[in-house]
Amino acid sequence: MDPIKVGICGFGTVGSGTFRVLERNSQLISARVGREVIVSHVGARRNAHNIDTGDTLFSPDIFAVARDPEVDILVELIGGYDTARELVLEAINAGKHVITANKALIAVHGNEIFEAAQAKGVTVAFEAAVAGGIPIIKSIREGLAANKIEWLAGIINGTGNYILTEMREKGRSFADALADAQALGYAEADPTFDVEGIDAAHKLVILASLAFGIPLQFDKAYTEGISQLAIEDIAFADELGYRIKHLGIARRVESGIELRVHPTLIPSHRLLANVNGVMNAVMVEADAVGSTLHYGPGAGSEPTASAVVADIVDVARTLTADPEHRVPHLAVQPDRLSSEPVLPIESVTTSYYLRVSVLDKPGVLAQIATILSDAGISIEALIQKEAPEGQETATIIMLTNQTLESRMNDAIKQIEGIESTRGKVTRVRMEKLEG
Amino acid sequence: MDPIKVGICGFGTVGSGTFRVLERNSQLISARVGREVIVSHVGARRNAHNIDTGDTLFSPDIFAVARDPEVDILVELIGGYDTARELVLEAINAGKHVITANKALIAVHGNEIFEAAQAKGVTVAFEAAVAGGIPIIKSIREGLAANKIEWLAGIINGTGNYILTEMREKGRSFADALADAQALGYAEADPTFDVEGIDAAHKLVILASLAFGIPLQFDKAYTEGISQLAIEDIAFADELGYRIKHLGIARRVESGIELRVHPTLIPSHRLLANVNGVMNAVMVEADAVGSTLHYGPGAGSEPTASAVVADIVDVARTLTADPEHRVPHLAVQPDRLSSEPVLPIESVTTSYYLRVSVLDKPGVLAQIATILSDAGISIEALIQKEAPEGQETATIIMLTNQTLESRMNDAIKQIEGIESTRGKVTRVRMEKLEG
Repeated sequence: MDPIKVGICGFGTVGSGTFRVLERNSQLISARVGREVIVSHVGARRNAHNIDTGDTLFSPDIFAVARDPEVDILVELIGGYDTARELVLEAINAGKHVITANKALIAVHGNEIFEAAQAKGVTVAFEAAVAGGIPIIKSIREGLAANKIEWLAGIINGTGNYILTEMREKGRSFADALADAQALGYAEADPTFDVEGIDAAHKLVILASLAFGIPLQFDKAYTEGISQLAIEDIAFADELGYRIKHLGIARRVESGIELRVHPTLIPSHRLLANVNGVMNAVMVEADAVGSTLHYGPGAGSEPTASAVVADIVDVARTLTADPEHRVPHLAVQPDRLSSEPVLPIESVTTSYYLRVSVLDKPGVLAQIATILSDAGISIEALIQKEAPEGQETATIIMLTNQTLESRMNDAIKQIEGIESTRGKVTRVRMEKLEG
Repeated sequence: MDPIKVGICGFGTVGSGTFRVLERNSQLISARVGREVIVSHVGARRNAHNIDTGDTLFSPDIFAVARDPEVDILVELIGGYDTARELVLEAINAGKHVITANKALIAVHGNEIFEAAQAKGVTVAFEAAVAGGIPIIKSIREGLAANKIEWLAGIINGTGNYILTEMREKGRSFADALADAQALGYAEADPTFDVEGIDAAHKLVILASLAFGIPLQFDKAYTEGISQLAIEDIAFADELGYRIKHLGIARRVESGIELRVHPTLIPSHRLLANVNGVMNAVMVEADAVGSTLHYGPGAGSEPTASAVVADIVDVARTLTADPEHRVPHLAVQPDRLSSEPVLPIESVTTSYYLRVSVLDKPGVLAQIATILSDAGISIEALIQKEAPEGQETATIIMLTNQTLESRMNDAIKQIEGIESTRGKVTRVRMEKLEG
């Protein structure tokens, strides 16, 4: 049989990694697919990593790849929103299958792209868009297809996890750990996407669609970063038996779907709490299987290429298959997507870690406890730290039971209104991650 | 479109779980598949769990299911070797796809079964045969299809892991922990398959075939159980920063494939070391992606049913597909299987934990150290425990560097020959699980 011809658009870290893996493991890959897979065309302004591309056609214009009639599968690795969208839609219109590692593109323009692909009978695959080399898309969409998924929680941004690990293990400040991550190439010069949770929210929105069979709704995700996290909160959490991780959480509750990225206290004995450095992991809780955890590298040249090439193998297997019988893009058939609403953060129910600075005088704790109690919020653990020698503010740390976010917002406003309270109340959400 | 008709043979724990999951999540599953999936025929001597099977045909003869022309997919859940083999081959000959949770059947008769399936153009799926609800077959065979897999190591028997967890956490003896596992229904009345590593070896043989593209070779696997493991070795390992887990390990080395199940010391900070109780996990090291870990429940009614139903969904999607383009049974096309030899245990290279009881007198340690040194084996850590008050034997615990098993056998024989050595040398293999 003819070899399958792949066109790669974007030849940076992941593009060159994909080329390298396809070349190095070509024997193995063709033994798996039953056909040879070759890169016939690369579209990129430059060959940044100086890969020897041999006879492969090299075009400075990425759109030349979308228009190349020889190309069966176009791999989009240019990143960003607009040009990537245009390129992918042009490839689909030309009847090509598309593979992308672009989480932003899928999270924001995925519904439109999948509709176009559906109309043309082609597949758009995106395993590399979430958690790099971990086959999490495949695991949720196919491996757990028997299940009603109840919730999932993931460490899905390696940069943020590296920073939190450094802060905890070495007692470094956020700014310090970030500078280090930048020096090591784990963080961009502008780290906003990573540390403010936008990148994680892109990935979470994709995972939630697959888990719950809902359309992609990036604008509905609640996003809170780690840049405001104080080293003392990480230490107090430790003291209480918890780690703080930047989690993406999607949960199905009676009234709808929770979709939120924020720093989260989780019990330190959980496997997820012990995922350190740049590694990623996603925990899935589902009705038949119970808890599963999927761990691995969430970024990097060859880990991401591993996911891109897995998609190439999958798509290669469906080249001759009836489009009706392929794995649906968002896990369910397009006409069976659910309209369950995504809940605003005020309607989310969770537990809380609270830290309050107060003037060290009698009655303050009683006032705070009364406010929480009146709101129906119970305190599950409490530490009161004496005011340090020569200072007059003491610190109170509390873990609460589960309550509605809007109710907690009210309680916090009241606590901040107490005369003896100093500054703002620090609030970090908490999840037990129980089955 | 017509519903897909499933026949279930064997209606015990997993069979009834499969029926329950298909019924409870039927809406979801049909939204995923694009067709309804129904159980049209159950073959079993009795309905042990008293499931309400409604209109489903119920036959006391399992072979009636294989002969039922209405059945598209036969699910074999009777267990054992001979009748299961006969049933599966009859179903294949009748042109049915087959799904099985039977690791023993696949490990021992898989080559023959896959050949028959290939000739008939049907699929035999077996996700449930390894690590229950964890989609590990799919992850290795499809999710990591880009990679040359270097090694994998797994906790793939929940009974054994429960016993080891109890021994470590509660200081209980093997016999005590086993009795408890039996009382809880985690272990059979005859626990040989679980505690002697035979069940784990069945699963390991399957994983190794997928990882390395080699035929199934159960007779070549080295198997050592946990029944001889002493509580003191678990405690000494802890003291040295290790946990003892009953691992299945498959590794590709220059001269061939290592395939072995035995108690293994692993560093206590590894995620795999923190997989406790009846949970399973498989760590895979591969050239492009690096390390991934796949964790979840390895047994039980609905976790196993989750894997069976995932296979049903997969097979349902390929009902109309060209057989040439399906995922190959053993990960590579049948004519591309590798003939790399499986190595005998004597040819395996690993590190060791050794415990020696010696008469507490000068020079013994020097003698032992000399034997190891002469064999080219270096000692990486050593603890010498004084003889307890009133006793004359001291205990020496050593961790060695990597060496050939045959060389270690010789050294152990020499150590046991020293006049001051008391009894046998205890040897537990050790793996760092580094990338």
